[in-house]
Amino acid sequence: MNAEAQSPSVRRRASVRTKRGAAPKAVLGPGDWIDAALTVLATETIDAVRVDVLAKRMNVTRGSFYWHFEDRDDLLGRLLEHWRKTTTERVIERFTLGSNSPGEMLKGLLALPYHGRTAAHASSVEMAIREWARRHEAARLVVAEVDNQRLGYIAQCFTALGCSLSEARHRADIFYATLIGQSILGTQILESQIEERLRMLGQLFVDSATGPKHPA
Amino acid sequence: MNAEAQSPSVRRRASVRTKRGAAPKAVLGPGDWIDAALTVLATETIDAVRVDVLAKRMNVTRGSFYWHFEDRDDLLGRLLEHWRKTTTERVIERFTLGSNSPGEMLKGLLALPYHGRTAAHASSVEMAIREWARRHEAARLVVAEVDNQRLGYIAQCFTALGCSLSEARHRADIFYATLIGQSILGTQILESQIEERLRMLGQLFVDSATGPKHPA
Repeated sequence: MNAEAQSPSVRRRASVRTKRGAAPKAVLGPGDWIDAALTVLATETIDAVRVDVLAKRMNVTRGSFYWHFEDRDDLLGRLLEHWRKTTTERVIERFTLGSNSPGEMLKGLLALPYHGRTAAHASSVEMAIREWARRHEAARLVVAEVDNQRLGYIAQCFTALGCSLSEARHRADIFYATLIGQSILGTQILESQIEERLRMLGQLFVDSATGPKHPA
Repeated sequence: MNAEAQSPSVRRRASVRTKRGAAPKAVLGPGDWIDAALTVLATETIDAVRVDVLAKRMNVTRGSFYWHFEDRDDLLGRLLEHWRKTTTERVIERFTLGSNSPGEMLKGLLALPYHGRTAAHASSVEMAIREWARRHEAARLVVAEVDNQRLGYIAQCFTALGCSLSEARHRADIFYATLIGQSILGTQILESQIEERLRMLGQLFVDSATGPKHPA
């Protein structure tokens, strides 16, 4: 499998037609196929992400798939690339946009798993991709890259709060494990308790790094 | 699927023979089939846990499987039951054996993901079962039961340390998410840094619950 998006100069020119001779749909882009693949991945496993399954869901012929992708491996590679970009961009945006302090940035990350339905979908996709990564090298490499990128940003925040490089690294590993664990376990908590939960997360992970040991 | 071990009164009396007419092996028990299933599960998915695959791995005929199990669902149900027992027993043992204080008990749990190869195997099995639970009700119920049991014990420890019921529950949820996250991410850390890591985990999660707010 190739994690890079492939752009061969010649693609099979299948016209985009719905099944049973119905009128052609608005032309589907590669993003539509990737979205459909992510939806299947969120409820099934990577093995269920097949061209025939996706074409059936989207009510188009298999042929229209090959307008955008070389083959299934091409789709899977681009799906991974899409996931890598969107999941790390979420973190990077919080860094570069707005004027959040490092502490606010960390508290913002701690709140992500409590963002309801968006969080639930992201968590299902993340779990399916991690499961896939246990068995396939290309997926494993992308997951390792995403983990390293996220960990790097989190460690940077702790350094900015005054932690030593070594302490920042330990804290980042623990912080990130908590995020992933919450995402996987789901956050079954009453709406009314979320505020208290976030206060405690902030105390445990962020305020403790700016305590008397680390005067700001 | 039935999560309860079934014990039908009549079982097919297939003799346990190795393939290709070799001499019969020492008789395999149901535990051997469950162990083989767990080994396959640790590196593949639940879909790969099939009678023919296991028989081939164990170098016996498929027939010998039916000496111990009704069918594949029976095996999967007993595998879940085995996992439930062994994973919660690990926690309960730490509670009832030895004379650990609640704080020591919690610190012992925090050290579990750092137990090298045993931890890695347990983590692979746990992840495969959670992935399976996303798609199958019987597995989902067992995972929910295991989570609740573990969370209950952890919350009890925090109560014993002096936390209110509400704070103990928040702390237990966060503590458990960190354990699961570490188990899933793996603990890629230098041997020489484990002591420092465990010290910091203990500070963040346990010592903070026995601070000035909660005099012992």
